Amino acid sequence: MSTPTHPIPARLAEGYRGFRHTRFRRERDHYARLAEAGQQPTTLMIACVDSRVAPEVVFDADPGEMLVVRNVANLVPPYQPDAGYHGTSAAIEFAVRQLKVRHIVVCGHASCGGINAFRQNALKGVDAAHGDFVARWMDMIAPATRLALTCEGVDPLQDQNAMELAAIRQSLVHLRTFPWLAERERAGELALHGLWFDVADGSLRVLDEASGEFSALDDAPLT
Amino acid sequence: MSTPTHPIPARLAEGYRGFRHTRFRRERDHYARLAEAGQQPTTLMIACVDSRVAPEVVFDADPGEMLVVRNVANLVPPYQPDAGYHGTSAAIEFAVRQLKVRHIVVCGHASCGGINAFRQNALKGVDAAHGDFVARWMDMIAPATRLALTCEGVDPLQDQNAMELAAIRQSLVHLRTFPWLAERERAGELALHGLWFDVADGSLRVLDEASGEFSALDDAPLT
Amino acid sequence: MSTPTHPIPARLAEGYRGFRHTRFRRERDHYARLAEAGQQPTTLMIACVDSRVAPEVVFDADPGEMLVVRNVANLVPPYQPDAGYHGTSAAIEFAVRQLKVRHIVVCGHASCGGINAFRQNALKGVDAAHGDFVARWMDMIAPATRLALTCEGVDPLQDQNAMELAAIRQSLVHLRTFPWLAERERAGELALHGLWFDVADGSLRVLDEASGEFSALDDAPLT
Amino acid sequence: MSTPTHPIPARLAEGYRGFRHTRFRRERDHYARLAEAGQQPTTLMIACVDSRVAPEVVFDADPGEMLVVRNVANLVPPYQPDAGYHGTSAAIEFAVRQLKVRHIVVCGHASCGGINAFRQNALKGVDAAHGDFVARWMDMIAPATRLALTCEGVDPLQDQNAMELAAIRQSLVHLRTFPWLAERERAGELALHGLWFDVADGSLRVLDEASGEFSALDDAPLT
Repeated sequence: MSTPTHPIPARLAEGYRGFRHTRFRRERDHYARLAEAGQQPTTLMIACVDSRVAPEVVFDADPGEMLVVRNVANLVPPYQPDAGYHGTSAAIEFAVRQLKVRHIVVCGHASCGGINAFRQNALKGVDAAHGDFVARWMDMIAPATRLALTCEGVDPLQDQNAMELAAIRQSLVHLRTFPWLAERERAGELALHGLWFDVADGSLRVLDEASGEFSALDDAPLT
Repeated sequence: MSTPTHPIPARLAEGYRGFRHTRFRRERDHYARLAEAGQQPTTLMIACVDSRVAPEVVFDADPGEMLVVRNVANLVPPYQPDAGYHGTSAAIEFAVRQLKVRHIVVCGHASCGGINAFRQNALKGVDAAHGDFVARWMDMIAPATRLALTCEGVDPLQDQNAMELAAIRQSLVHLRTFPWLAERERAGELALHGLWFDVADGSLRVLDEASGEFSALDDAPLT
Repeated sequence: MSTPTHPIPARLAEGYRGFRHTRFRRERDHYARLAEAGQQPTTLMIACVDSRVAPEVVFDADPGEMLVVRNVANLVPPYQPDAGYHGTSAAIEFAVRQLKVRHIVVCGHASCGGINAFRQNALKGVDAAHGDFVARWMDMIAPATRLALTCEGVDPLQDQNAMELAAIRQSLVHLRTFPWLAERERAGELALHGLWFDVADGSLRVLDEASGEFSALDDAPLT
Repeated sequence: MSTPTHPIPARLAEGYRGFRHTRFRRERDHYARLAEAGQQPTTLMIACVDSRVAPEVVFDADPGEMLVVRNVANLVPPYQPDAGYHGTSAAIEFAVRQLKVRHIVVCGHASCGGINAFRQNALKGVDAAHGDFVARWMDMIAPATRLALTCEGVDPLQDQNAMELAAIRQSLVHLRTFPWLAERERAGELALHGLWFDVADGSLRVLDEASGEFSALDDAPLT
């Protein structure tokens, strides 16, 4: 007996038609050139799977501009070249060694579901064996966020936010455990950045690694 | 000595300002509601890191509409609940068990760099130990694409295309190795889909799982 | 004493910056080419001043695609080559004789304020001398809409709608009083069209001049 | 014999479908509210018919934000409440007396075809009787531009530009001949503005009426 086939969701078909008749039509020469010449993105964006934070939307990116890896909570695992399947590390290798990107951006955001799940588990004393993958995946940030929990007190929103920022800092630390990446950074051929986007008000904070602080990108207020 | 801090790339700051003053301004009530109520996406999109294929652009998606995991070549590893960090599997677990999405779409595309790397290695007889992560990651599709190579002959473009389609089919097979996912599909609460986007002409092909064939989404021609 | 200068409204400055950093940036080569080569639009659009019906938005037009004249209620006066200032007629002359457009579209819409003002005046027996310009301008459609009032009965919304459609038909009649325009139409070098856009549901109706009827442009429903 | 009916141009149908499935879908609640409540624009924009300068695009305007009258060369005739059809004056009356807009913007632009036609006629000594409407319409700016011609010397581009700016200043003078408009300006309920858009590089200049000078809107450079 064959597997039943479902028509694609109506919204996907509709959205695709909208794209094709507006933006694709307008930029089709650019798409054709990119198909012919191949991609040469200068930035690797490491972002969350969250449905509210699409990097190409938030940064109004053109096709071809940035390679985008997305996982739960925009995390980077430490360098572990073993026999396992390492999706995020493969993307980093592809970006750095093959495409030779000049920038890697770790882009976190407010109200992150992965961070919240981790925080709830931490509060309840649930260990990483809970569930099959999410808890284990999020456990990666335990060292960094433990500090955040201690420092920031008892306000849940403040804790959540502190963990989101701590996770970004930790991902930058993990990025530098990849030897060929650290080497390019030392050679001045690659720069690392940490950003945090607030879904609620559209503001963007930028990490200053020297001080460890995030500060709002200077911008004209909206009317 | 402190780590030097780099200003964020000018294009990112500029693109963000453009977004904030156009689309975010126009949709800020929607963003604020999503921040308050949390996300409830109905679709999980599994897409490639490729800089030319942004799912929210290609499907003109609204904020909140689809959870998006992106890795090299839009692959799904088989179900392996061990001590390793499994980013893609964590995203699938988050989407299916927590957010209870109704659709999972594996969206491949033409000129895929990951598939091409795999194909080049296969032709040269380079094994998966080459490099640290990409070759090992792509080795996941070996069973499916071996068939593609055999069937399709010697035209490189045809081979590349056949492998891209075979990889999508294999990801669907792997998805069904996740027991709680397969259960929801059997219960009619979840549907799986395979799509393939052609960067060069903007066409979209849809997989019919019964026949194994991909066919173009019926659409009005562009003028 | 000098005239005081006001800063431009904040929304205009903000909107302009948004445009410049998103759409203009993306299409600047196209804009530069248009500035160099001059415009060659193939369509003249005659539309209303209404703030809800921007032709370039409703028809997703590219820069350079259509010449757009906008006045109250998208009217065309009859051919009157005298010493007066005739703005709409000048636009028609520029489009037809200099730019040699292939299409002229009269695009009306629902809830037209100019038509409503005319209807209110007609119901109250106020003559065209009321006010300085609007009533006199709208008086142009009296012949056509008198018929509409008679035919359509007493429902105000129906009356309003019937007048909007009647005014479009009349503008097409007036267009054909311009001798050099009628000549190009007879020679098959120019086609005239009537459209009506419904702000409330986004539907578009197309006039069939043979029958005098407007019918909805066949389109896929929105989800 | 009936008038033959032509199908609407393919690009219009395609563009409309694109709009309806992208921007209209996304903003349909806003459109529905505007249809229900009526428009309340705060700005009247007086712009050119030119196909390269769509005000809603250049100022990224939302539906409902600005009333837009467009004629050849964005001109305002002097106040002439006689028996003629005065389209632009009717739009001004509608905007000021009925909708009570707070701002009127005269928006000129580079490479204006109407201004160029006037300039060519002036150089050749062709009088305003040439053609049926355009020459007579453009003759309105003769007093202002005569000065421009004298002042600016012999460089055609400089002349063209000086005339474009002079025409904007003159339109502001003509606006103030409308007694009910001037009264609202004196009462501080209405502000007039002059802008000039350069198609070639996307820059925008703002008139300072006190000095009579136009200066670039301060803006971050594009990358």
